[in-house]
Amino acid sequence: MPYRPRLSNAQCAPTFTVEARDEHGVAVPTSIATERPLTIYVDKREIVTLMTLGAAPEALAIGYLRNQRLVDNIEEIVAVQVDWEVGAVAVTTRNGLADLDGRMQKRTVTTGCGQGTVFGALMDDIENIHLRDDVRLSEATYYQLIDNVRRYDTIYKAAGAVHGCALAHGSEILMFVEDVGRHNAVDAIAGRMWLDAIDGSDKVFYTTGRLTSEMVIKCAQMQIPILVSRSGLTQMGYDIATKTGITMIGRATGKHYLLFTGAHRFVK
Amino acid sequence: MPYRPRLSNAQCAPTFTVEARDEHGVAVPTSIATERPLTIYVDKREIVTLMTLGAAPEALAIGYLRNQRLVDNIEEIVAVQVDWEVGAVAVTTRNGLADLDGRMQKRTVTTGCGQGTVFGALMDDIENIHLRDDVRLSEATYYQLIDNVRRYDTIYKAAGAVHGCALAHGSEILMFVEDVGRHNAVDAIAGRMWLDAIDGSDKVFYTTGRLTSEMVIKCAQMQIPILVSRSGLTQMGYDIATKTGITMIGRATGKHYLLFTGAHRFVK
Repeated sequence: MPYRPRLSNAQCAPTFTVEARDEHGVAVPTSIATERPLTIYVDKREIVTLMTLGAAPEALAIGYLRNQRLVDNIEEIVAVQVDWEVGAVAVTTRNGLADLDGRMQKRTVTTGCGQGTVFGALMDDIENIHLRDDVRLSEATYYQLIDNVRRYDTIYKAAGAVHGCALAHGSEILMFVEDVGRHNAVDAIAGRMWLDAIDGSDKVFYTTGRLTSEMVIKCAQMQIPILVSRSGLTQMGYDIATKTGITMIGRATGKHYLLFTGAHRFVK
Repeated sequence: MPYRPRLSNAQCAPTFTVEARDEHGVAVPTSIATERPLTIYVDKREIVTLMTLGAAPEALAIGYLRNQRLVDNIEEIVAVQVDWEVGAVAVTTRNGLADLDGRMQKRTVTTGCGQGTVFGALMDDIENIHLRDDVRLSEATYYQLIDNVRRYDTIYKAAGAVHGCALAHGSEILMFVEDVGRHNAVDAIAGRMWLDAIDGSDKVFYTTGRLTSEMVIKCAQMQIPILVSRSGLTQMGYDIATKTGITMIGRATGKHYLLFTGAHRFVK
């Protein structure tokens, strides 16, 4: 069994029904996605407030700390306790976080609006990332994965307004998380990968969201060599994919896709 | 003429072409949206780094400071100078910003990941927002607006991966901004409204993005009573719309829409 911190199990109902009126004047009960503030405290120190669907709050908190590189190893975390009454998650570490003031200072000045939160140091380390080059994804497996993903997308189908992320091994979906923020979904995947001791180096990451700089960086940091998105990409996402050599497929809908970078891992 | 700070005019090319391979193995030149870091300095103090398309950087910087309530009035701003060589915008104020340390401290702990940046105080003031109740939008005007918006959406059509926002008077679009972050687009609209001395109290705000808490708060803060989105909404977006009495229309596509709140301003 991999090491696990003590965890609460505080996932909450992802949708909520309100009444709307449509263009015919008819009252339509409409599912909308939950959105709750969740403030992360590490050893009683307030770190950040995330707006989340609340489907995987413990994994989200762990993955946030992982992806922001505030915690280097799951074993540093002793407990993760979510309390929705106060909208807080208390993370207890074994030995405290080293140089938290310095890292928080860095964050203050480099927060990316609408792009989630980026620490300045995150970009500096792209040069040091080396992804596995012997991993392959065949087109047939890719199409099977897209078909498998389509069936998982349940909150989106019911309520819209969420993004989904999946971690897959070939076409097999190992985990699937949806959230109101696309960065929360990728962070929750990162958290679950640590909790389940899953190595990213031979996996495929799928997201419904756009491939912006931070999304590509986070996948590369998790050592995942293949990244697939239903949406488009930005120039910085493309530049970082080129630098890291990640295999990036965009506009993945039905039978269509565009292969942008890292073509050596994709087998037609 | 309304007061204007000294402004650079540093908008940059919004798209960039790369070559991708499609499912037929054919090389497809593909437009992708630009994404650049832009660090805002106020009186030489670093405030935040935004990842932006760069279509309206001066308005974005001003609108960011407005929507985060770091600046109360356009006349406090003397100059806004963008320099893409260093990815920075220098904002010079007349008298400095009052209590910047206190406000920055607040921001550090309440940054909403994937939701842009929220200051803690922003939510506290919802109770004090009163939107005009005598503004009306007829269904015919609404449909005309949707048709007008459709024709503006050019970067999205070319490259995807961007969100668009429009400020309209009835069906007439007064301004339209696209950006890689939906919060950047709304902030740039806020900046242009200040620059052009446009009052929001009888206007309609349109966004392609989802109606999350922060999006609704920003519109309400700008005194805009009617909010229309192509996308869905979240529970907190709905709750804030209910509290402020804003007229909120979601899933606005073609002939379909859902009217969620503030029905008194919408005339069928």
